Amino acid sequence: MNIALDMMGGDFAPEMALKGVKKFLDEHEFDGTITMLGDNRQLSDNLHLFQNNQNKIKIIPTTQVIEMNEHPTRALKEKTDSSITVGFHLLAQGNTDAFISAGNTGAMMVGAMYTIKSIEGIIRPAIGAYIPQEDGKLSLLIDVGLNADCRAENLLQFAILGSLFSKYILRINEPRVALLNVGEEEGKGNLISQAAYPLLKENDKIHFVGNAEGRDLLKDKADVYVCEGFTGNVLLKFAESFYDLFQKRKIKDAYLEKFNFEMYGGVPVLGVNKPVIIGHGISGEAAFCNMIEIARRMIEKNFTETVKNAF
Amino acid sequence: MNIALDMMGGDFAPEMALKGVKKFLDEHEFDGTITMLGDNRQLSDNLHLFQNNQNKIKIIPTTQVIEMNEHPTRALKEKTDSSITVGFHLLAQGNTDAFISAGNTGAMMVGAMYTIKSIEGIIRPAIGAYIPQEDGKLSLLIDVGLNADCRAENLLQFAILGSLFSKYILRINEPRVALLNVGEEEGKGNLISQAAYPLLKENDKIHFVGNAEGRDLLKDKADVYVCEGFTGNVLLKFAESFYDLFQKRKIKDAYLEKFNFEMYGGVPVLGVNKPVIIGHGISGEAAFCNMIEIARRMIEKNFTETVKNAF
Repeated sequence: MNIALDMMGGDFAPEMALKGVKKFLDEHEFDGTITMLGDNRQLSDNLHLFQNNQNKIKIIPTTQVIEMNEHPTRALKEKTDSSITVGFHLLAQGNTDAFISAGNTGAMMVGAMYTIKSIEGIIRPAIGAYIPQEDGKLSLLIDVGLNADCRAENLLQFAILGSLFSKYILRINEPRVALLNVGEEEGKGNLISQAAYPLLKENDKIHFVGNAEGRDLLKDKADVYVCEGFTGNVLLKFAESFYDLFQKRKIKDAYLEKFNFEMYGGVPVLGVNKPVIIGHGISGEAAFCNMIEIARRMIEKNFTETVKNAF
Repeated sequence: MNIALDMMGGDFAPEMALKGVKKFLDEHEFDGTITMLGDNRQLSDNLHLFQNNQNKIKIIPTTQVIEMNEHPTRALKEKTDSSITVGFHLLAQGNTDAFISAGNTGAMMVGAMYTIKSIEGIIRPAIGAYIPQEDGKLSLLIDVGLNADCRAENLLQFAILGSLFSKYILRINEPRVALLNVGEEEGKGNLISQAAYPLLKENDKIHFVGNAEGRDLLKDKADVYVCEGFTGNVLLKFAESFYDLFQKRKIKDAYLEKFNFEMYGGVPVLGVNKPVIIGHGISGEAAFCNMIEIARRMIEKNFTETVKNAF
């Protein structure tokens, strides 16, 4: 098993990525290789960090970095030796089994969709986010940004993708799927949710539990909350802003700590042909470690095949 | 000036409404009349609460109540002597200048739209919600529920309505209007926000400051945040759920206290021909008092005329 990691992505590169790799290797039994993409000098100079695990590390030197504010498509095309471009090449050619980056989100999305491409039958891939539930569990909100305009069929696919991820990777038995809506009863909502409800209700690949409202998102009403990417993105960023607020107000609370979204690491782009994980720019040590672990599980479980079989 | 109040609406009727009226009369100079609609016995028996202000109170007895879970249109039609039905009659006939209720929200919306009707030129009325800003101010999020499916023209009208309310009723000089979106740059977003951006930018009735993301909602980026009612409703209910959470976790914090949305009282239905204010079911004393004050300002400022002139 080979997991490639963009070491130059994120606000604290390569330090946090290095620490995350170390943490992962220290804490997990891992027989595979972690391919670190980035500045040769910065990476080689830090190999000593990994002590006995150095044999599990491979460095592929890259000389360019796609910065956070660069235009994704242009940057991917022009910066042919950037860590992200090279990462997608490795993945496309089968030289690695998964690719992770906390770098330019747009470049990662474009790379995933145009280099790795959607699984046949999937109209649009989606990206989810973990939402901390009051009882300590994590639920999945999907989509949170890839698809600002959706049809009901997209929502059904997000439901299936989220459900498979929740079951096989987050290990939730028979995950409950809810449709995020403005009311509880069937028939409520905008045109798309009215059209999506019966599709979700009748589909036997998911365990649909009906509509959920904004107030249910932190409660244990469902394991997967489905919505179009516009609402999902606004909602996620709003939720994230609460953590800054708690920090500013110096509020200490074990549950509210869980609104520190960069802890979780990224959620994969679901519906593409290989595991691709996009991290938050401010990903720290734990986030990088978690992303590697999620990639490992996706490879081990052959998650892409599971998705292919469902579509 | 005559303000009609449904005393039978809300989870703690008529107690909280009575307390709210008392608070308003005790704390404000008010020359007008408050018309209380509801059960004659329950209201008459409590007139002593108002002491010297009893001359400012008028009771119109009603014998029915539209319950929270009743079908709005059917209930309005069948319960002809309900406090809500009678309230809208008074308003339509010019026997009161404003109508307030914390009762069945759907019945209030239907009543506002079909009895009082939209102002000419307004495609769809909207309903806003106050959002507590980090610096202590309140901003307005509009629409939060009347319009789950919107066109760009609706968003422009919400922006104008919200801006007028913010300026004339909340007394914010030159209120800043932002479009709630998934990115900051012009051109970001779903089809409707992409279409709305230039309309907002070119309109000289509002002070448009560009896109705002979910993370900006609690910050002092704008005074009015515009979105379609689906996203607005999900977002508001999500924000409301945080207050329950803070209570459960026993977190005491002056700013987080402001997420107690029932404190604020309702926001008017904007764009209809008379002041109509819909309160939260769990409205308390302060909420009822605030709603009466908002109604008073709307009447005093002749807010409906202001809106008519803008359209």
